[in-house]
Amino acid sequence: MFKRFMRAMEALEALMGIIQPVQCQESIPVQDSVGRVLSVDIVSAVDLPEFNRAAMDGYAVRSSDARGASTTNPVYLHLDENCTQVRTGMVVPDNFDAVVMLEETFLRGNQVEVMGEVHPFRNVSRIGEDIAVGDLIFKEGHKIRPPDIALLAALGIKEASVYTRPNIAIIPTGGELVAIAARSLLPGEAYEINGLMARLYAEKWGSLATVHDIVPDDPELIRKAVVSNLDADMIILIGGTSVGEKDYAPKVLMELGDLLVHGVRIQPGKPTAFGRVQGKPVVCLPGYPVAALSDLYLFVRPALKKLAHLDDAVPKTTARLARKIASKPGYLGIVRVKIEGEMAIPIMTSGAGILSSVARADGFVIVPEELEGIEAGEMVEVTTIE
Amino acid sequence: MFKRFMRAMEALEALMGIIQPVQCQESIPVQDSVGRVLSVDIVSAVDLPEFNRAAMDGYAVRSSDARGASTTNPVYLHLDENCTQVRTGMVVPDNFDAVVMLEETFLRGNQVEVMGEVHPFRNVSRIGEDIAVGDLIFKEGHKIRPPDIALLAALGIKEASVYTRPNIAIIPTGGELVAIAARSLLPGEAYEINGLMARLYAEKWGSLATVHDIVPDDPELIRKAVVSNLDADMIILIGGTSVGEKDYAPKVLMELGDLLVHGVRIQPGKPTAFGRVQGKPVVCLPGYPVAALSDLYLFVRPALKKLAHLDDAVPKTTARLARKIASKPGYLGIVRVKIEGEMAIPIMTSGAGILSSVARADGFVIVPEELEGIEAGEMVEVTTIE
Repeated sequence: MFKRFMRAMEALEALMGIIQPVQCQESIPVQDSVGRVLSVDIVSAVDLPEFNRAAMDGYAVRSSDARGASTTNPVYLHLDENCTQVRTGMVVPDNFDAVVMLEETFLRGNQVEVMGEVHPFRNVSRIGEDIAVGDLIFKEGHKIRPPDIALLAALGIKEASVYTRPNIAIIPTGGELVAIAARSLLPGEAYEINGLMARLYAEKWGSLATVHDIVPDDPELIRKAVVSNLDADMIILIGGTSVGEKDYAPKVLMELGDLLVHGVRIQPGKPTAFGRVQGKPVVCLPGYPVAALSDLYLFVRPALKKLAHLDDAVPKTTARLARKIASKPGYLGIVRVKIEGEMAIPIMTSGAGILSSVARADGFVIVPEELEGIEAGEMVEVTTIE
Repeated sequence: MFKRFMRAMEALEALMGIIQPVQCQESIPVQDSVGRVLSVDIVSAVDLPEFNRAAMDGYAVRSSDARGASTTNPVYLHLDENCTQVRTGMVVPDNFDAVVMLEETFLRGNQVEVMGEVHPFRNVSRIGEDIAVGDLIFKEGHKIRPPDIALLAALGIKEASVYTRPNIAIIPTGGELVAIAARSLLPGEAYEINGLMARLYAEKWGSLATVHDIVPDDPELIRKAVVSNLDADMIILIGGTSVGEKDYAPKVLMELGDLLVHGVRIQPGKPTAFGRVQGKPVVCLPGYPVAALSDLYLFVRPALKKLAHLDDAVPKTTARLARKIASKPGYLGIVRVKIEGEMAIPIMTSGAGILSSVARADGFVIVPEELEGIEAGEMVEVTTIE
C-alpha cells in the first residue's frame, strides 16, 4: 500500500523542506566559472579605469585653454606642450582634463587647431568612474555569466570562490536491467537507461553525478547501496518504488530513515517516494522512463537547483492546444506535446513504458488536479523538454 | 568613414547570408551527445519491446481462459500450466496473451483464483508496440536531449552521427591590451577581456573557440592573423573597427576579401563590421566591452547557431518598465535593465566602456529605430543575459 497519496505540490514541499543548499566552497580560475555560483561577495580592490582614460580619439587638452573655441573662432594649441594626441583607451596625462575629438581639430605643423570647446572631463573616463576601490561588484549567490567573468578579469581577479557542485548518487535497481552496451539483451531484459538520463539532467542542472552499478531487487543490496552513498548531497534511487512484492525502495527508506512521501497524485509518476536517511534526501523514481522524466522535471530539478544555489527558471512557451487532452481528475496530468507553429499537438500514447513519445515531444503541458482535461483551442503553457 | 550606415536588421541579414551550417560530421558515443545535432536520420533496427512484456505485476494467462471471471464468479487456473506469475517488465510467454493484475487474483496452493476477466493483450506491451523495426526515431537536424539519449541507448545504439561543432577563431587586437593575469598593468594598459567573453559565449552557443594571441594595431599583423585562421568556420576580430587612424580591421577585410557591412545603426555597437575572406565570414566587434556584448547577442549568436544547425531561441521575459528610457532615433537601442519582481529598472550609464553596468543587469530591452525611447510603465520584452 502507498503511505498516503499526496498531491504533487504537497510532495514537492515535503522534498524541498529537506533540501539544504550545499555549503562547501572552492576556489576556481575565473575563466572556468561560467554557471557557477559565488560563495562570497566580490569587492573591487582597484579603480576602473585606473587612470583618466580617453574615451575618444583626439587631443588631450586643458579645458580652460579651449574655452570659446568654435569653427569660426578656433583656438590654437602647441602640440606636446599645450595638448597631446590620444587614442581611445589611452591615458589622459595629469596636466590635461579633457579630450577634443579628432573631428573637431586640424593639425597645422606643430599647432593643433581646436574648433570646439570642451567641458572639464569631456570625453574622459575618470579614475574609478566605472568601478571604485571598495565597490561591491557581485553579491554572494550570484550566478556567473560570461560578461561577469570579463569584468572580474578586467579587475585583475584570477580566482573566484564558488559553491561546490552538489554530488548526486544515482542508484538504478532492477533484476531485469543490463548496463548499456555491456552485452546483447536476453528476453525479459532491458538496458538501464534511467540512471543515464538522470545523470545527464543532474549535470545539465548544475550537479556532479555518478551512476552506481545496477542493484538487483534485493532489499539488503539496496540498503547497502544507499548506505554506501550517504556521502553524496542527494541520492536518486530508481525502480522498485511501487507497492509490489519486490518494490523494496520505500521499505528500505523506512528502515534506514524516514519515508516522507510514497505515492503522488501525478500521472505518470504515481509510484514516487521521497525520504531522508541520516539527513540526506533520497528521491525514489519509478522505473518507467516517461514517469521518471516527469519526476525529474517536477521534483528533482527544483531540488537540484536549490542544492546548487541556482534559480529554478525553466524554459516555457505558450501555444494553442490542437486537440482536447484528457486527464484523470484528482491527479496532476503531465501530457507530452509537439509544437508546430503556434499549436501544441498532444502525443497520444498507451503508457509510460518507453521514451518514443518523448522523442516526438517538444515539451509537456501540466493539467491541474481539479480539471478532467483541457479543451482544444485553449492556450496552454508548455514546459520545454531541454 | 563608415562604408554605409546600415540598420541592424539589414546588417544581420547580410551576415546571415554568408553563413553556411557546418557540413562535417563525426561519430561520438551516444552518452556524450547532449546538445549535439544529428547529421543523419535514426531508424530503429530493433523492436521495442523486443518481446511481449508484462505491464503489471500479476499472472500471465490466456484471455480466453479468464472469460467471464469476476469477484462473485472467479475462474481457477493451474499455476505454471494455465498461468504463470509475472512482474512488470517480464516476458509474457508465447502461449499467454494477457496479464491479470495481482490485485484481482488470489493464490490457493497451486491454483490461482482469477477475479476479473481480461481482453487479449490487456496489461501487455506487445512486441514493437512502442517502436518497430524501421521506424524513424529522429530526423537529421534533431538536437539531442537527455531522454533522447536514453531512448537511443534503449535501442542498443552506442554511437551517434552528429555535425561537428563550428570552429571559431577569435582575434583580439589592440596595442594597449595585456593578456589576462599575464602581469600587472602599466598606465594606459588594460586586460584583454573581450576575447575571453566571446570565447565563453561561443562555447555556450554550441561552438569550439580558440583565442589568438593579442595582435597589436598593425595592419600587416592583423592581416596575417586573419589569413592564418581561415581554417576556422568563422573569425571574430575584436577592436579597431571604427573610423580612426588605427582602426585597421575594416581595411584589412576590404583588402583580403569583401567588406559587406561597416557601421550599424545600433547603440552601443555602431563600429561593427562584417565581411568575408575566401568564403569565411569575419565578424569585427568593437573593443568597448558593452558594445561587444550587444553585438555578441544580436549578430554573433544567430550566426553561431546557424553554423551549428541549432535553433536560435534565447530566453526572454516580459516586465514593466520602471523608468522612461531614452534612445537615439534611427538607431536600435540596447538598454540594460535589472529585473526586480515584475519591474525592469533601466541601468543608467555613461558609456560602453566597461562592464560594471552589465554586472548589475539581468538583461536588455531593445528599443526599435523609430522610437525615441519607451515610457515608464510600458510592458517590455527583456532578453536575458545568460
